Amino acid sequence: MHRFLEEAIREARLGLEEGGIPIGSVLVHRGEIIGRGHNRRVQGGSVVLHGEMDALENAGRLSAAVYRECEIYTTLSPCSMCSGAILLYGIPRVIVGENRTFLGEEDWLRSRGVEVVLAEDERCVELMTRFIEAQPTLWNEDIGV
Amino acid sequence: MHRFLEEAIREARLGLEEGGIPIGSVLVHRGEIIGRGHNRRVQGGSVVLHGEMDALENAGRLSAAVYRECEIYTTLSPCSMCSGAILLYGIPRVIVGENRTFLGEEDWLRSRGVEVVLAEDERCVELMTRFIEAQPTLWNEDIGV
Repeated sequence: MHRFLEEAIREARLGLEEGGIPIGSVLVHRGEIIGRGHNRRVQGGSVVLHGEMDALENAGRLSAAVYRECEIYTTLSPCSMCSGAILLYGIPRVIVGENRTFLGEEDWLRSRGVEVVLAEDERCVELMTRFIEAQPTLWNEDIGV
Repeated sequence: MHRFLEEAIREARLGLEEGGIPIGSVLVHRGEIIGRGHNRRVQGGSVVLHGEMDALENAGRLSAAVYRECEIYTTLSPCSMCSGAILLYGIPRVIVGENRTFLGEEDWLRSRGVEVVLAEDERCVELMTRFIEAQPTLWNEDIGV
C-alpha cells in the first residue's frame, strides 16, 4: 500500500511544482500502476480533472472487468464527482491519504460497497494545509465553495 | 426550457455523427448557454467526458456564485460521476431528457436539494435506444457494466 500512496504524493508534489493544486492519484491494477495524475485546474484550466479523474483519464478506456480488479489511491478524500466516478466504474477499493482538510463522500462510497481505507498520512495533510492557507480562493473554486 | 433541451439534443446528434455516444448537454446561466458538449469516449478516448462533464469543461473555470445561478440540460439521466459533478459545483437544477434507457442518480440529487426535471423527450429515448441496440458493448463500457 505505502508504495502506491508514495506515488500519489509524488503526483501531488508535481502538481504543486507546476503551480497547481497539490492532489495526486494513482490507479492500480493487480499491483501495477496503470494510470496516474494530479489536479489540472490551474495547469489545464480543467474543472473536471481532479487528481482521481486525471488518473482515470490517463489510464484510458478500460473494461468493467479491469476496473473491478483495481484500487485507486488519492492523497485527499474524494469529492462527490470523484466518488461518483469511482462508483460508475465499479472500483472496489479506495485508499485515502487524508480527510482532515476536506471530507468527501466516503460514507456514500461505503454505503455502495466500496472499501475506503484512510491512511492518515501527515505529508498529505501538510501539503493541503499549506496550500489552503496560501490560496484559499483557488481551493474554494476547486470544491465549489 | 425547450430551446435548451433542443441544444442538448443537437449536441447528442453531433456526437452520433462523429461516431460517438449520443448524449449531449448544455450549461445555462441566466438564460444563456455558457457551456455545451457531448460524450467524448469514442472521439477523444475519454473516460471522464460524459456529455455533462464536457459541457462543464467547455464552460471553463467559474466561481461557485455563477454555478449557483445555472441549470444544466442533459439528454440522458446523469450517472453517478455527472451527478457528483453537479453536486460539487452546486448547480441547483437539472433538466433530464429521458431516464428510460438509463436511470442515473436522480434520487441522490433530489436528496441533496437539486431540482430534477424530467422532460420525457421521445427523441432522446430514440437516440439512445437505437445506439444501445447498435453498440451494446460500447454502451456498457461507458456506464461501467
